[in-house]
Amino acid sequence: MSVFTLPDREALTRWLDHYSIGHLVEFEGIANGVQNSNFFVTTTLGRYVLTLFEDIGRAELPYYLHLMAHLARHGLPVPAPIANRDNEYLGTLAGKPAVLVSRLPGSSEEHPDSGHCAKIGSMLASLHLAGRSYGRRQPNPRGACWRAQTATLLQPCLPADDAALLDAELRFQESVSADFSRLPAGAIHGDPFRDNVLWADGFIGGVIDFYFAGFDALLLDVAITVNDWCVMPGGALDPARMDALLTAYHSERPFTDAERAMWPTTLRAAALRFWLSRTADRALSRTGELVLVKDPDEYRDILRLRAHEAVPPLPGADT
Amino acid sequence: MSVFTLPDREALTRWLDHYSIGHLVEFEGIANGVQNSNFFVTTTLGRYVLTLFEDIGRAELPYYLHLMAHLARHGLPVPAPIANRDNEYLGTLAGKPAVLVSRLPGSSEEHPDSGHCAKIGSMLASLHLAGRSYGRRQPNPRGACWRAQTATLLQPCLPADDAALLDAELRFQESVSADFSRLPAGAIHGDPFRDNVLWADGFIGGVIDFYFAGFDALLLDVAITVNDWCVMPGGALDPARMDALLTAYHSERPFTDAERAMWPTTLRAAALRFWLSRTADRALSRTGELVLVKDPDEYRDILRLRAHEAVPPLPGADT
Repeated sequence: MSVFTLPDREALTRWLDHYSIGHLVEFEGIANGVQNSNFFVTTTLGRYVLTLFEDIGRAELPYYLHLMAHLARHGLPVPAPIANRDNEYLGTLAGKPAVLVSRLPGSSEEHPDSGHCAKIGSMLASLHLAGRSYGRRQPNPRGACWRAQTATLLQPCLPADDAALLDAELRFQESVSADFSRLPAGAIHGDPFRDNVLWADGFIGGVIDFYFAGFDALLLDVAITVNDWCVMPGGALDPARMDALLTAYHSERPFTDAERAMWPTTLRAAALRFWLSRTADRALSRTGELVLVKDPDEYRDILRLRAHEAVPPLPGADT
Repeated sequence: MSVFTLPDREALTRWLDHYSIGHLVEFEGIANGVQNSNFFVTTTLGRYVLTLFEDIGRAELPYYLHLMAHLARHGLPVPAPIANRDNEYLGTLAGKPAVLVSRLPGSSEEHPDSGHCAKIGSMLASLHLAGRSYGRRQPNPRGACWRAQTATLLQPCLPADDAALLDAELRFQESVSADFSRLPAGAIHGDPFRDNVLWADGFIGGVIDFYFAGFDALLLDVAITVNDWCVMPGGALDPARMDALLTAYHSERPFTDAERAMWPTTLRAAALRFWLSRTADRALSRTGELVLVKDPDEYRDILRLRAHEAVPPLPGADT
């Protein structure tokens, strides 16, 4: 996340009067990520994170906020939205939709080992299991429809090699879309990258940034995680870390035969999603105070690899 | 809290399968307090506190659990009950009503200074303000009715001096009960002693043990806090710490004229409540694995002092 809008201190002080968390002590912008404006807010009673939404419409926000509240209520270390004195999570600050959430402990681990990968595998399965009783449903904002639309917009701007790769991948994914739509589905995080997981004392202190969550195949979340957590420089899969992650996930929520059949395909869909979003972010990026745009080529290379490398099977008995 | 019931490891492991917080790593009893059985529970995903209820009926528990959830939702550092996969907070373990809550950071401060007292004053006011939008209502389990009933039971067992003091105090409190019932009321914690407040990095990391909460005069909570946090050895009030606590509370929720008039009386009612409960605990205490019974004489002496000493007024303009 980045900082595009800076509320003034007086406005924030007045806004906090609608909450029961004491008075403003200090706030500072957070330079991390590619969306929204985020601030650490310290009050006389505690530490919170303030988010001003730049791109997400007010109508879509309740899905994310109530999902976070639901998961926190089930004991998972996710940011819990803070209700104001009117019992509402969502407010308005500096003209933008705004929310306060609990600030979680820890810092991200850029070089995870197999131990980290086992823990994130277990955590991801627990998020998926707890999400089963979440009552709201909203499509994955970076799901198959978005991928097809975005590819159409971006294809003319790509070099010939990349355009050909994209075209071939879209045709392939379209050919298996019926199988994909029959996989076990539910609320997925959508973006469980290393920088969205905080570690404290060897535990996961927080899984943050649920603003790409949505209803989709649970396996897509697993594939997104493996593509980020279990790769070697250059993007090839690291069998040891992948095995640790998938075995831990499988022991909480066993994979189905359909998921085993679709695993290589889903790794490709997950790579495609980030190649497209990063390419779009670079093409469309605005100027903010603190903006971070990630390299799209990394995910083009991962997609190319996944389409050609032999992928080890998911855990669980073949039938 | 103490430990009367010890669940076996296998039963706890199976019970945790109803939650989405991973698998049991370890658990240990907590030796602190006078009610229920409490355990630190560590799972592969995090750290929690398990409570088995020994004395509180299943019908009364939802008030406490939903109050904690409500306050946590408003950003206050209180234990958040964890919902199981059926979305329920309350379960059964070892034949007892049982609940898991989040484990909060920090440790209690037995020797608070004026800085601590200002922070607890501000926190208490914030708890009271956030409690305004809590929809459930249940009487204070140690309110005026309980105090009168318990006094009747205990009076024959007391030494003559103590019995006379108790009799005089009951008559006095009865004479002002109409005024007391008109004070601003809401959900009070009921037991915000030093050992129920955890400090971490100079912040209040947690206010715990809401199982004496109930609907009563908010000022009673303030008086209970002052009687524990702002006293010198022997029980006399420390004006500096009391001023810090009351000024901080007043800046969040201003005291009313009615509260100013009833302040000395409320300090006496608060002292009476703990003299009675500690006397009853000593008289009726059972044998547990880890039982802590606090000294009742401390609160008899505080009551005697409050009935005779000059109490500084609450902050705020006289009218």
